[in-house]
Amino acid sequence: MRLSKRKSTSTAEVRKSSAQTTLKELGRAVYNDLDAGKFPSLTLSSRSVRNIVYDKKLLQFVLGPGTVKRSSANIKHIRPFTQLIWLAYFANKLVQEKKTSTLRDVYYSAQAFNVEFVDQAESDELITDLEVLMQMAREGLNIYPEERSAIFGNMTIEYTVPGYEGKRLDLSSHPDGVMIGPALTTAEFVNTDAEMVLAIEKGGLFTRFVEERVHKRFKAILVNTAGQPPRSTRYLLRRLNQELGLPIGILCDADPWGAHIAMVIKSGSANAAHLRELTTPAAVWLGVWASDIVKYKLPSDRLTDIDIKRLYELKADPRYTEKMWHDELDVFLKIKKKSEQEAFARYGLSYIVDTYLPEKLELMKSA
Amino acid sequence: MRLSKRKSTSTAEVRKSSAQTTLKELGRAVYNDLDAGKFPSLTLSSRSVRNIVYDKKLLQFVLGPGTVKRSSANIKHIRPFTQLIWLAYFANKLVQEKKTSTLRDVYYSAQAFNVEFVDQAESDELITDLEVLMQMAREGLNIYPEERSAIFGNMTIEYTVPGYEGKRLDLSSHPDGVMIGPALTTAEFVNTDAEMVLAIEKGGLFTRFVEERVHKRFKAILVNTAGQPPRSTRYLLRRLNQELGLPIGILCDADPWGAHIAMVIKSGSANAAHLRELTTPAAVWLGVWASDIVKYKLPSDRLTDIDIKRLYELKADPRYTEKMWHDELDVFLKIKKKSEQEAFARYGLSYIVDTYLPEKLELMKSA
Repeated sequence: MRLSKRKSTSTAEVRKSSAQTTLKELGRAVYNDLDAGKFPSLTLSSRSVRNIVYDKKLLQFVLGPGTVKRSSANIKHIRPFTQLIWLAYFANKLVQEKKTSTLRDVYYSAQAFNVEFVDQAESDELITDLEVLMQMAREGLNIYPEERSAIFGNMTIEYTVPGYEGKRLDLSSHPDGVMIGPALTTAEFVNTDAEMVLAIEKGGLFTRFVEERVHKRFKAILVNTAGQPPRSTRYLLRRLNQELGLPIGILCDADPWGAHIAMVIKSGSANAAHLRELTTPAAVWLGVWASDIVKYKLPSDRLTDIDIKRLYELKADPRYTEKMWHDELDVFLKIKKKSEQEAFARYGLSYIVDTYLPEKLELMKSA
Repeated sequence: MRLSKRKSTSTAEVRKSSAQTTLKELGRAVYNDLDAGKFPSLTLSSRSVRNIVYDKKLLQFVLGPGTVKRSSANIKHIRPFTQLIWLAYFANKLVQEKKTSTLRDVYYSAQAFNVEFVDQAESDELITDLEVLMQMAREGLNIYPEERSAIFGNMTIEYTVPGYEGKRLDLSSHPDGVMIGPALTTAEFVNTDAEMVLAIEKGGLFTRFVEERVHKRFKAILVNTAGQPPRSTRYLLRRLNQELGLPIGILCDADPWGAHIAMVIKSGSANAAHLRELTTPAAVWLGVWASDIVKYKLPSDRLTDIDIKRLYELKADPRYTEKMWHDELDVFLKIKKKSEQEAFARYGLSYIVDTYLPEKLELMKSA
């Protein structure tokens, strides 16, 4: 499809302008307090465990009504208050100068300003506080993690990063997959003939799908999540679903860890309960299910004690209440086996594409 | 430079045709034995620890004169002999059909042929035996690992993989970096104006270098090794050095693990003592050195007990006998500190490019 109904301002632009607006408001509030002779303070939603609740309508964790206050009038608060204000200053600089930074860069950059963090864990924590305060993912402030995954398919994107504004790339131009980093995450979708997105846990299977031309045969955009997908990849999957209306199917290993990769794409994590832009509630877990191990007689390994412990944790998790998910957890516990995506190679390298995938795609249509 | 002296057959073609020739020879030897009424057998260099020796001229580990024999006449050998012959058969099929496969795929594929491997560790072992037997990396047989890293710079490559033959890609077309997988590793270098290659340990710094336009300012091709580089990346670095004569500089964290990333790019690992195509003896460790921690007053952490144990191991390692390397190991032990590449952010995000890099490049010229 040609994406004719292109918004006048791009998603990336929206993220950026809303980052700058919110940062400006934050700064203004502090100045106003100072002008009025008051000690400035900040109030943000609490991230304590008892303030994280599961929202059945949004299909994700959200923060409850609890708040915490950071006041410069309180000697105990001065340190986190200063750290938070400096982070806002630094993020503003990043956005203005169109530079990106990693979490680690932020930690070290603080030292140039004599702002003290005991270790990176502390600066990471405060960056999350800033996310809560701004109701915005840190990626909107140009702060990215290290990990990268990849995308491939018939789709043209247009960059918005400096030096590349207006340049385009065809996402089928590199058969090893196009890396999903800051530039791709903030790019515009220009046109595509894809009818679905397949998120795949492992690079090997992703390459198999490229070689078997799944992008053409099934009109699918392929995403290699490289294990538990980095937040940028979850954000991109959500964009593909929400901006283009493409259904998202997920293929992972048949074990509790694989199932949870699918769940985190769908319903997010408790850590990001304060964000709405990293989940894709409409995403469908296509497999590999516990019941597929039986149905397809897959080579398998016995569940370890850690696997079993994890399955009981997932059974108690509010994200897994949907019957289908819950049933599959029970099948794992019953058969006490796990399998990997590559296990289909038992029937030849292309079996997973020729036979398994078409059966699963029928499911996605009915979902 | 336009790479006018392009060989008539590409590196990838050479790898492939030599793979097929060697596999054919292997098959013929077995058939000849059978025709002559003899039990077929295979003889390969031993990979036992006492047969791995450091070659000071090649600057890498090599296998010594010891050999092992796998004879089908010996009941104890029948299993590994059969596994090895099956692997050769499977590799031949991969190369003929121009499909790639992961180590894990190979393990599961064996089950379709009722060839038994206890676990993937066993099939990985046998794949290494096949490498030894064929004197060729498994990548030449289209067997790849999962991990990927990335490359960026002013360079055009031409693919040789099916469906992409003759298609070209500009390696500066994607600012997040172009993923290094099977397609890129086997591509031809068409033209470049680069004068050097910089291999960088971490994605964050790689993105910083892209943003600061290091590829233009210093005419450098940038490679993100993503930690200890996968073998494909080491193979690509060697190709850039040997085919294009480009010097290779390496930038890692200032700790024993970072130093060893540089060393493995330069001199390889004991595990790959049977291969010559994964090392770049001319590669230069640019930093971050232990002495840089002192010179640049970098933020640092104390070495842990594990770091210190590792430093003593490296001091005893034959690859570290060169004075400069040995001296830096001693500096680590003396100052008992380590730093990361990102620590330069203490002086601003672009300091590492504006100040540190030019100083280090002077070194590379004199190397």
